[in-house]
Amino acid sequence: MSPPDPDLLSLNTATICKQWSLAQAIAGCARHGIRGIAPWRDQLHEMGVEPAAHAIRGHGLTVTGLCRGGMFPAADAAGRRAAIEDNLRAVDEAQALGARCLVLVAGGLPGGSKDIAGAREQVRDGIAAILPHSRQAGVPLAIEPLHPMYAADRACINTLGQALDLCDALDPRIEGGLGVAVDVYHVWWDPQLERQIERAGRARLIAFHICDWLVPTRDLLNDRGMMGDGVIDLPRIRSWMQHAGYAGFHEVEIFSELDWWRRDPDQVLETCKQRHQRFC
Amino acid sequence: MSPPDPDLLSLNTATICKQWSLAQAIAGCARHGIRGIAPWRDQLHEMGVEPAAHAIRGHGLTVTGLCRGGMFPAADAAGRRAAIEDNLRAVDEAQALGARCLVLVAGGLPGGSKDIAGAREQVRDGIAAILPHSRQAGVPLAIEPLHPMYAADRACINTLGQALDLCDALDPRIEGGLGVAVDVYHVWWDPQLERQIERAGRARLIAFHICDWLVPTRDLLNDRGMMGDGVIDLPRIRSWMQHAGYAGFHEVEIFSELDWWRRDPDQVLETCKQRHQRFC
Repeated sequence: MSPPDPDLLSLNTATICKQWSLAQAIAGCARHGIRGIAPWRDQLHEMGVEPAAHAIRGHGLTVTGLCRGGMFPAADAAGRRAAIEDNLRAVDEAQALGARCLVLVAGGLPGGSKDIAGAREQVRDGIAAILPHSRQAGVPLAIEPLHPMYAADRACINTLGQALDLCDALDPRIEGGLGVAVDVYHVWWDPQLERQIERAGRARLIAFHICDWLVPTRDLLNDRGMMGDGVIDLPRIRSWMQHAGYAGFHEVEIFSELDWWRRDPDQVLETCKQRHQRFC
Repeated sequence: MSPPDPDLLSLNTATICKQWSLAQAIAGCARHGIRGIAPWRDQLHEMGVEPAAHAIRGHGLTVTGLCRGGMFPAADAAGRRAAIEDNLRAVDEAQALGARCLVLVAGGLPGGSKDIAGAREQVRDGIAAILPHSRQAGVPLAIEPLHPMYAADRACINTLGQALDLCDALDPRIEGGLGVAVDVYHVWWDPQLERQIERAGRARLIAFHICDWLVPTRDLLNDRGMMGDGVIDLPRIRSWMQHAGYAGFHEVEIFSELDWWRRDPDQVLETCKQRHQRFC
């Protein structure tokens, strides 16, 4: 496989969130020639939505996704309503940024619950509740299946096949505005990955996140690797994405307490660019 | 659901392996009225196979499984041959113990490899190589799908559906001697779990391992919970197993560096018995 188009690299700001504010990350992407950016809402709120949108437009960056909506399951109806309202606000913020999608991390089991099937129903109902608004706003929703090790506390949608089943249930005629974010960290192990990417096709493949799986992995949450440092066959997965019709960005998202969050962020961005060309 | 038959409780000796030798674990099970035991090969070799078999028979215990065979993928042909030879010896040991199965943990990616599909082929070939001998010995092979977080370094068979596909490929006419070990820790999150347990049926359901998934989980390997301390709906999964025809033991297997490995093992066994009745 030939190296990817360098203009398709995007920076998920989680990768340097301990070092840089969103304003710094926007300026950093512009300085390093990285054409895509995916901000998180906490930093977006700190900067302000309008100033952020203005700075992003000023540098001509593409917002490859806003992180994140979702987190639908709650112990009571008031909690579920609050989650839906927060997601409606997230859609508006994504619209203001011109984001290519709002990334949805489903949410896990509400406190004390062992009913994962019930949590999954709450996720389905939550997405159904916000889909009319997100369609009207022109903000595609990208359901991100998370690694099964997060099923209890972060996301009860855990495989690409399951996320696509959910898309099919909520949007059976593929009217648009609903699809998936494929993050290699979460799905690389799945024996059905190639088949499910093909099933998703261009209409459902909204975002593509890259990083690597380290051996050993020292922490369940914040020990993701830089592309090339782990065991994920990134070119193979990218080839499946492209074969299925995906032509969007490759968004680097690395949570790394022990390594990349401790480095000079300019060095991190340079490394992302080099590794994208060499290992993706 | 009514509480399980207490005579179906089995102790996987990993649960108290830091405190007790196999001889002590055998005596402990007998003392506490636990009728099943599942030893590990390292402790079995320390005690000696014949003395262990003699002690287990003397107490009338059922060996619900020998842990473990598998670990088939290797970087070269010599490594793969060595793995197969070691598995043939494990079959003989399981036979000597009268074990209900040899548990197979597939093995992960050979050093440096990113080819998980290739590793999976090596697992298939390895099982195919030992199946004639295990059948002759009357030792069923139980493929244990491991949680996807172990895909790189321990087992590239990661869902029950995938393990059953492997069974179907190697034993298409269900001639016996090949099936799965269902460990709730590895599969509880799987949206296809109920369907795949039903698919497996009595012929393929060889072993059932129980523990719990803690929130938070502080370590990828050695932070399993005692039944009742986590989020797994154990009675529901047991009901699926029974509905599918499984009538065997419920084997407690807990790796717990921070908790249960630090406790008085007699107290651990009493807790297993109580929790089995109360939460399984």
